Amino acid sequence: MDRIKEITQKITEINYRLMEETQKRLDNLTKPKGSLGRLEELAKQIVGITGKENPEFKNKVIFTLVADHGVTEEGVSAYPKEVTAQMVYNFLNGGAGINVLARHVGAKVIVADVGVAQDLKVMSGLVIKKINYGTKNMVEGPVMTKQEAVRAIETGVEIFEDEFKNGIDIIGIGDMGIGNTTAASAITACFTKSAVKDVTGRGTGLDDKGLANKIRVVKKALKVNKPNPSCPIDALSKVGGFEIGGLAGIIMAAAAKKIPVVVDGFISAAAALIAYHIEPKTKDYMIAAHVSVEKGHKFILKHIGLKPLLDLNLRLGEGTGAALAINIAEAAVKILTQMANFKSAAVSEKIKP
Amino acid sequence: MDRIKEITQKITEINYRLMEETQKRLDNLTKPKGSLGRLEELAKQIVGITGKENPEFKNKVIFTLVADHGVTEEGVSAYPKEVTAQMVYNFLNGGAGINVLARHVGAKVIVADVGVAQDLKVMSGLVIKKINYGTKNMVEGPVMTKQEAVRAIETGVEIFEDEFKNGIDIIGIGDMGIGNTTAASAITACFTKSAVKDVTGRGTGLDDKGLANKIRVVKKALKVNKPNPSCPIDALSKVGGFEIGGLAGIIMAAAAKKIPVVVDGFISAAAALIAYHIEPKTKDYMIAAHVSVEKGHKFILKHIGLKPLLDLNLRLGEGTGAALAINIAEAAVKILTQMANFKSAAVSEKIKP
Repeated sequence: MDRIKEITQKITEINYRLMEETQKRLDNLTKPKGSLGRLEELAKQIVGITGKENPEFKNKVIFTLVADHGVTEEGVSAYPKEVTAQMVYNFLNGGAGINVLARHVGAKVIVADVGVAQDLKVMSGLVIKKINYGTKNMVEGPVMTKQEAVRAIETGVEIFEDEFKNGIDIIGIGDMGIGNTTAASAITACFTKSAVKDVTGRGTGLDDKGLANKIRVVKKALKVNKPNPSCPIDALSKVGGFEIGGLAGIIMAAAAKKIPVVVDGFISAAAALIAYHIEPKTKDYMIAAHVSVEKGHKFILKHIGLKPLLDLNLRLGEGTGAALAINIAEAAVKILTQMANFKSAAVSEKIKP
Repeated sequence: MDRIKEITQKITEINYRLMEETQKRLDNLTKPKGSLGRLEELAKQIVGITGKENPEFKNKVIFTLVADHGVTEEGVSAYPKEVTAQMVYNFLNGGAGINVLARHVGAKVIVADVGVAQDLKVMSGLVIKKINYGTKNMVEGPVMTKQEAVRAIETGVEIFEDEFKNGIDIIGIGDMGIGNTTAASAITACFTKSAVKDVTGRGTGLDDKGLANKIRVVKKALKVNKPNPSCPIDALSKVGGFEIGGLAGIIMAAAAKKIPVVVDGFISAAAALIAYHIEPKTKDYMIAAHVSVEKGHKFILKHIGLKPLLDLNLRLGEGTGAALAINIAEAAVKILTQMANFKSAAVSEKIKP
């Protein structure tokens, strides 16, 4: 817990003064004022986060955290539980969606086992920091102990800091874990105080019957556990997941080091909810990559106050949307740092009315 | 005119059979069915366009066509007319928005003068195929002759075909021309039969008074010229622009060669309207990059039936949105060609209900 407090204290406000100066620079580039819309906003936010006038993304890193969920016993997923571990091997072999998209945008993928229900082979590129062999079934009580919840967040901090030594300029966060949309829906209902049916979706592809069951499971889990939205550790321990806690830790550690965090989809956003409720200043370090088909995602974005960059009907997770958004963020900083201004390009300015 | 007919006859239906096979392949990749949303749709469309099972984007080219507009005499732009030529030099020096974004996505930019109102210096990288020194003022009569309108489209065909010799796998189309949103608004009102006030925006940054004047100008131009929406050459000659005609020619030439066309913003979409009304099959070759802040753009997208990929409040033109969208299209084909399938990755498939 001391480690979380320590990190929290290191999270400062972003640099608003530098953002104002950046706005003036953006307005002097050879384009009508504001005509690059969200690219300009992004460039400004990244300057504010990093405190660098001319940020550059040499090291782009996507953290894909993996864990299992006891709630799969309730038949909440269209895929069998073993897929979690199988997908880790797919990640390490470079064949998953996140591998393809990370390569495309020049990002490194760090795959971390923070709670897969089986022992994984030790393989190059796999970080093993297992907190436990999957969570417990949330309809029967808390999915993990409070100590494990704290440990999950601290583990995220460690995973970030280990890689930070190699250099990081921007990160994306993603997830893998059969059953984790059920946990994310429970977290979302808890913090945003929304109706369970509004924040529970089809995950990997449930039919109507499966969806009705999933809604029933989330409702029951909330009734049994009564997670406390004013205590994020409590909520995480009762209806969360190890990867959700770990990703919350990564967000906090990144914010403490002034690194922009591109938040992928629904699961990553549930982690963002935890981080935001521990320290609201983390919000300004977040860039919402996209809005997922998973319907709970919108509620989180609205609750935190984030505007997604993309709307491409994605619902894969892994960090796939984050990879695409990192590319757009990089485009944004290049606009700021590489475009000519009216004076240097000898282009006439706007006619004064 | 014979050249246009000839190109039109070469535009065939895209390959639906191959698209069906591609859908099966996409469904076998290690991800829940459809979970990469629009990336999957895009990959399928690109296979259909190119007729290649495994498309690859080695040569990405953005055509930025430049021309002046006589209607600037009516005070319809927030910037002076000289900016058109000044921006050409900025493009050639690599300092404009399109240069930065094209470099970011690994695309080549072809800048072509198809109607700048002054003679430009001969510079490396500049294609000079001037149809005339700017268009005439649309409130006084047709902006160009019918012969010039035909020549504009044919010039676009030539510009594409000249570059096609060097290899092209996907193109983006963009524009520069002070006053050209006025022409695009007139074109949009003509073909979509929308009210002028609904399709006329602030362009590079008009205030309320300027916008009211611009609406008046477009209305007057339509009244004076009566452009005929069932004859695209007539409409182009009366209220269009040389770059708009040229871009329409590029779209047609690309479609004839089975090359995907990423359509940038409002001006490019006005060119798409012309191409679509000459040959509706061109629609399937188009990918709408984004939806512009320029309000007429939405009407065109709806009229043709295109769904924009991005919504980032862009309104710069030049091909900037197309550059970002080309990158997403490339991500889409990589998903198809580089991801592992369930069998190869030994990942369990969905539980049969």
